Amino acid sequence: MGIKPLRIVPLGGLGEVGKNMMAIEYGENILIIDVGIMFPENDMLGIDYIIPDFNYLLDKKDKVRGIIITHGHEDHTGGIVYLLREIQAPIYATALTRGLVEVKLNRGGMLKAAKINTIQAGESIKLGPFTVEFFHVSHSIPDSVGLGITTPAGLIVHSGDFKFDHTPIDGWPTDFAKLAEFGGRGVLALLADSTNANNPGWTESEKVIEGGFDSVFRNAKGRILIGTFASLISRIAQAAEVAERYGRKMAFVGMSMVENVKMARRLGYLKIPDDMIVSLDQTRSMDPDQVVLMCTGTQGEPSSILGRLSTGTNRNFDLLPSDTVVLSSQPIPGNEEMVYRTINRLLHRGVEVIDENVAPVHVSGHASQEEIKMLIQFVRPKFYIPIHGELRHLKQNARLARELGLAPERIAVVENGTVIEFHNAEMKIGERIPGGYVFIDGSGVGDVGPAVMREREALSRDGFVAVYLNLDPKSGRLVNEPEIVSKGFVFVHEADQLFGDARKRIREVVAKTEKDGMRNRVERDLSKFFYNETRRRPVVIVFA
Amino acid sequence: MGIKPLRIVPLGGLGEVGKNMMAIEYGENILIIDVGIMFPENDMLGIDYIIPDFNYLLDKKDKVRGIIITHGHEDHTGGIVYLLREIQAPIYATALTRGLVEVKLNRGGMLKAAKINTIQAGESIKLGPFTVEFFHVSHSIPDSVGLGITTPAGLIVHSGDFKFDHTPIDGWPTDFAKLAEFGGRGVLALLADSTNANNPGWTESEKVIEGGFDSVFRNAKGRILIGTFASLISRIAQAAEVAERYGRKMAFVGMSMVENVKMARRLGYLKIPDDMIVSLDQTRSMDPDQVVLMCTGTQGEPSSILGRLSTGTNRNFDLLPSDTVVLSSQPIPGNEEMVYRTINRLLHRGVEVIDENVAPVHVSGHASQEEIKMLIQFVRPKFYIPIHGELRHLKQNARLARELGLAPERIAVVENGTVIEFHNAEMKIGERIPGGYVFIDGSGVGDVGPAVMREREALSRDGFVAVYLNLDPKSGRLVNEPEIVSKGFVFVHEADQLFGDARKRIREVVAKTEKDGMRNRVERDLSKFFYNETRRRPVVIVFA
Repeated sequence: MGIKPLRIVPLGGLGEVGKNMMAIEYGENILIIDVGIMFPENDMLGIDYIIPDFNYLLDKKDKVRGIIITHGHEDHTGGIVYLLREIQAPIYATALTRGLVEVKLNRGGMLKAAKINTIQAGESIKLGPFTVEFFHVSHSIPDSVGLGITTPAGLIVHSGDFKFDHTPIDGWPTDFAKLAEFGGRGVLALLADSTNANNPGWTESEKVIEGGFDSVFRNAKGRILIGTFASLISRIAQAAEVAERYGRKMAFVGMSMVENVKMARRLGYLKIPDDMIVSLDQTRSMDPDQVVLMCTGTQGEPSSILGRLSTGTNRNFDLLPSDTVVLSSQPIPGNEEMVYRTINRLLHRGVEVIDENVAPVHVSGHASQEEIKMLIQFVRPKFYIPIHGELRHLKQNARLARELGLAPERIAVVENGTVIEFHNAEMKIGERIPGGYVFIDGSGVGDVGPAVMREREALSRDGFVAVYLNLDPKSGRLVNEPEIVSKGFVFVHEADQLFGDARKRIREVVAKTEKDGMRNRVERDLSKFFYNETRRRPVVIVFA
Repeated sequence: MGIKPLRIVPLGGLGEVGKNMMAIEYGENILIIDVGIMFPENDMLGIDYIIPDFNYLLDKKDKVRGIIITHGHEDHTGGIVYLLREIQAPIYATALTRGLVEVKLNRGGMLKAAKINTIQAGESIKLGPFTVEFFHVSHSIPDSVGLGITTPAGLIVHSGDFKFDHTPIDGWPTDFAKLAEFGGRGVLALLADSTNANNPGWTESEKVIEGGFDSVFRNAKGRILIGTFASLISRIAQAAEVAERYGRKMAFVGMSMVENVKMARRLGYLKIPDDMIVSLDQTRSMDPDQVVLMCTGTQGEPSSILGRLSTGTNRNFDLLPSDTVVLSSQPIPGNEEMVYRTINRLLHRGVEVIDENVAPVHVSGHASQEEIKMLIQFVRPKFYIPIHGELRHLKQNARLARELGLAPERIAVVENGTVIEFHNAEMKIGERIPGGYVFIDGSGVGDVGPAVMREREALSRDGFVAVYLNLDPKSGRLVNEPEIVSKGFVFVHEADQLFGDARKRIREVVAKTEKDGMRNRVERDLSKFFYNETRRRPVVIVFA
């Protein structure tokens, strides 16, 4: 019995390859790495979020030996409830990641059903034929890990989301020694984060934020509102440190912010003295220059705290003219317009706004080109697989590897759903598995697909017109005037003439049409009429 | 009779201040500067584009002494047809700008009605009490000008869209001497481009593109497709130069590209030898490594040439695996997602893609921070008005001016519609004029407003459900089953159960409701029912 092929399967359809979910298979054994969500693109109308399609795994449920979560961000954890509904396998995560996953499982009513094991960087576990070594990586959330997976086919190294920060906030840099040790041992394949593969140089250390925050605090005349992701625990720690230096107290606003801070303090990832923390209510009676409000909403979401503050529609509290708002964040691609609109609205309301364009109040959590090259040099893999990026990032990452002398045939740039096989120390691009991703819309999982999406698109462009023809059952002639209702098409109060002409047209068509094809005929004819009059194509439906 | 107040009025509602249109008023005299369009933001559903609201000028038609167009880009010229329909005043533009404006007027059927005067940088003209001196500025389109406007209240300098490029492609840098001369003369107010006010340093020269193109041409194995704006005449000139060096011929694809190249060659702004140019058809029989195709579609527009090539739906020609596609462009804010999606699709189709992240194939046409500071130093104005930017850009531009020692009260950051008044050499923020911008949707000008936009938004999220109740006229009871039609809500073929339950619910409601309030009652009740079942809120309408 020879050695079987090892299969690496990035799952999740469009979007970043291997980011949200990946399977590693050997014989009758499967490891799942990460189960995250994607946020919908601007033209995925009405969609809340997107999860990977689990179909591929459903007839292999029993073979799943474990679900490994590399770190606590949404795009690596957000689909866990949906996966556990289908596949019951033990979860492995570091303490902070576990804390964040448990919050999710609890909300989804799956906490009791889940088997979760806490692991630590430096440990290793055996799952079927796999031995998984967890090593620490620095990233924009603490307690992130990469993976060294020893398989019968060889050693696979998975970088996780990483950067090489020599002065991280938690004092815990990426485990360079472990990477070098893997390199010495001999690595079959390296899977490496490509998010910032287009950025030359070296990503700045989280440390530079301190200088940015310090200058903000030195100059602010009133309250300071700092917007960031609720999961950016180290950023919250930095804000707390500078706040203490300047004699300010902190209040946390928004459920996810409050919950995460509570959990991170309990687990020891956030060391803020009790007397530094006040409630939002308490801040009302404090001098504005003693207050820091930490809140979410840095992606321009209209319903977030910063979004509502920017439009003056927040209920609990409002902006003061002396406020300084800090956006310690970066727009996620696709959100630029909403983020910049929020900034413009905040400025319109008279407050000071500081974002990364104005002062160093944000750095990325992902490796730039020189760090990616460094990683490759440490690990010296036989084969190289760029992951965690769109195709344009993976291609650029592959260019970097080629610059370091890796032969093109040793580099695999694939899309989600394409299987990469290792057999007898050779790599080959295997089958393409069907399926991709699943839309979550309201309480619906996957009941909205391309057809519904096309209808929404048409409705979003030109709205609809619904018509009721009250026809005499015997003669098939109109009993009274056709009734027309429209939404999203034209401003109804100024369209009397248009709808008057439409009714006239309908009467003409009805007069010369048999009852049988009546509805279709009127729909077709009205569509043409409205296009000629307005150059718009509303969805037209007719009841008769 | 003393000196009257001079009024500067940026028009156009939301969006970049003073970018699309501006009025300068003195007594009974008005100058209009630029008449451009804005492109809709992602949530302006179904809108084609946006023009400034001309209402403010309509009862002052006779006072308009001239319409000055600073350069030929859409956001400065695109509204000209709409304006001329309302206000007939002479247009003043440089030769290339005039050429581009005439193409527009011709398409809009207004060419004959328009009075256009060609001006040259270095010239000055008298329009009522204003003397306008045109000075050359380098920008990403040739023949751009800034303005020195001598008014009875003092000298106003308007930068236009500019950069300080010492090695521009047409060899014609910004007229520094003129700027310094204005400074010596004494400038009341400087209005300065803020587009890149957030970019530190100095914008790179167009010259660097040559190196980028050269390396692309050196390495390309097959055809080279260069995507850029059709108005980026100097970029087309650069591509032609490098193509000639590498023995390749050029074909131009797309109507706007073909028209602009023809016009620019005729006017002498583009010097490409006849034998360098071939038709798309001719390229079919040529060796791929002798071909350059210039085309549009760099903003990810699905219906553009690059957009269609990326999805394999272009009619005239398709991609070859050996093609290299160059995006000599930058995503306009808000278009990032579509641009990156197009790049990913092109890569998916197997071609090489080079954008500004991979090689220096694009530079911005706008001044960065050090250039803006230089401009201020040349002109040394008494008052400073950042224009051409969103509020966040203007604020940053104002910061730069403060760094140079301009007192905050001498800097005016305003939004479109806010009048700035100069009187007795003092500046004051004046009234806010009503109106803003106008949506163009199909053939409709301004008939779509916030109400229709909200309906489209609701429809885009959750679609609609239309119901017809066939009620007996006498008893008010249902004659047969309620008829339900939905679009964009759920996948109808899998929603039998949902709609079955809905019909049952309707029957219950009808049974206990008077005929009078029937429609409202059923609409309300169904909305609630669908939300409970699906967590979605389709628009519900009922005919009875």
